[in-house]
Amino acid sequence: MSQTSTYTVTGMTCGHCVASVTEEVQEIAGVENVEVDLATGAVTVTSASPLDATAVKAAVEEAGYQLA
Amino acid sequence: MSQTSTYTVTGMTCGHCVASVTEEVQEIAGVENVEVDLATGAVTVTSASPLDATAVKAAVEEAGYQLA
Repeated sequence: MSQTSTYTVTGMTCGHCVASVTEEVQEIAGVENVEVDLATGAVTVTSASPLDATAVKAAVEEAGYQLA
Repeated sequence: MSQTSTYTVTGMTCGHCVASVTEEVQEIAGVENVEVDLATGAVTVTSASPLDATAVKAAVEEAGYQLA
């Protein structure tokens, strides 16, 4: 059974930013789906098992952004 | 001898936007260098010969932006 968590990412300004965050978060082991709402910064992650919050933070920072 | 022209591009919001515009404009035949100032939208193009304004407009639009 999958679970969904939503994070808020700051600093995304355009579709390229959305693509960068999506790409990095999708690389986390166990992630099944990533949806980003540019207007609100909401990043909704569906995963097979609970994600390590530090992995999500690291992925967002690798993309060049920050968790709120 | 090279010549330089400056265009103003609207809609760029981040470094990814700058990269997209730079990449497309650099593909125009004769272009030697492209410099983009994100804050002002100024795109300075150095070329071997005068550029076709419609080629520049097309490149900017291909990247997803508009000339002012």
